Amino acid sequence: MPTPVTTPIKALVFDAYGTLYDVHSVVEACESRWPGHGMSLSQVWRCNQLEYTWLRSLMGRYADFETVTRQSLRYACRALELQLTPADEDMLIERYRRLTPFPEAAAALRALEPMPLAILSNGSPKMLDALVRSSGFDQSIGLVLSADAVRIFKPAPAVYRLATDALSLQTAEIGFVSSNCWDACGAKAFGFQVFWVNRSHAAPEELSITPDHVLDDLGQLATLVGAKDAKGAKP
Amino acid sequence: MPTPVTTPIKALVFDAYGTLYDVHSVVEACESRWPGHGMSLSQVWRCNQLEYTWLRSLMGRYADFETVTRQSLRYACRALELQLTPADEDMLIERYRRLTPFPEAAAALRALEPMPLAILSNGSPKMLDALVRSSGFDQSIGLVLSADAVRIFKPAPAVYRLATDALSLQTAEIGFVSSNCWDACGAKAFGFQVFWVNRSHAAPEELSITPDHVLDDLGQLATLVGAKDAKGAKP
Repeated sequence: MPTPVTTPIKALVFDAYGTLYDVHSVVEACESRWPGHGMSLSQVWRCNQLEYTWLRSLMGRYADFETVTRQSLRYACRALELQLTPADEDMLIERYRRLTPFPEAAAALRALEPMPLAILSNGSPKMLDALVRSSGFDQSIGLVLSADAVRIFKPAPAVYRLATDALSLQTAEIGFVSSNCWDACGAKAFGFQVFWVNRSHAAPEELSITPDHVLDDLGQLATLVGAKDAKGAKP
Repeated sequence: MPTPVTTPIKALVFDAYGTLYDVHSVVEACESRWPGHGMSLSQVWRCNQLEYTWLRSLMGRYADFETVTRQSLRYACRALELQLTPADEDMLIERYRRLTPFPEAAAALRALEPMPLAILSNGSPKMLDALVRSSGFDQSIGLVLSADAVRIFKPAPAVYRLATDALSLQTAEIGFVSSNCWDACGAKAFGFQVFWVNRSHAAPEELSITPDHVLDDLGQLATLVGAKDAKGAKP
């Protein structure tokens, strides 16, 4: 059972990639193009995409998430010795703009209304806009914040600060939801009340910091945060 | 053939882990403790060790490299479902203090004298001291610099700056040597002349930045930098 929420939460902020949207929903497209390599390509691609966000942030060499996503795809294909044409790359980036939401996400978001709901993501504004519209989540989510505004990626505190600034709330009044344990740890270090959605029952990261709540999926959120009693309009 | 060096190099600065010392020389110890899992444990351990240095640096939650190395070992064992006792952990950390140098490293360093030679590493001073003494490289390397002095890890510019400050040289007068492509890219972004020692012929990272020279091993360095003409004493 997840730990009960004690401090009332006034808004919920969601990570996008891996939390609301399944980054591995590109596997099928990868598999049709490179039979037998779909899953390994998707995994190497995602792993390097994240590493590149951290490396570029630390080096002070920001590039937007679409660039990082393209470059990590190129690296992954070279590492796995798969031939990638410009047309393949465009096809997969286009697929990335329409990632499949996790099955419980739409209903979970609806159950949370009228709690103010936001997305805070590494994604570029253009990528996030396409994603939120293709999934129809713009019906539930009133605010989409991109790390692009501060030209650094999570888990840099400047990214999480975008949410406190935009929502005009204290850190502890914001519930932050992520399936990426490192992101949950970064958000907890910043001061949010953190929900780690651990769908795969993964080992927690050893970063001397622990998310406040661990959930099996997004469906458990509404009960935990007492959504029916939530006050306030959508941001 | 590696690209020839054009600007004269006045000192060479080496990364330690993966460049002079083989981080996977722990495989044998891992394999005796967990038969059949030695290589995968070593790989997951190293991968997470690096990720934790980047994440902690970005979160502003520095902990020294021994702590990060212990924590990434614990994560790796949990992820692979291997039981790790405190005695196992101490044994492997002790083994990490005596990592095996790459076979060509000792001769390559000797061939570079009297060029001033330094190490610039994420390692904590205690770990580096043990490593340099156990390998006898303290005979060739006059200066050991640890990221611990600035409480952030590579590829943050503050770490590379330790070398220009300690050696009182311009960035372009320093040759930086690393087998970690991301480190080579970070050092190039800082302004060093960079030698990427790509022993495994790995795909280069796609970070919009390219090391100046790519070598098969450390043995190619002396000819490239014209070590026999090098002036100056050891730092």
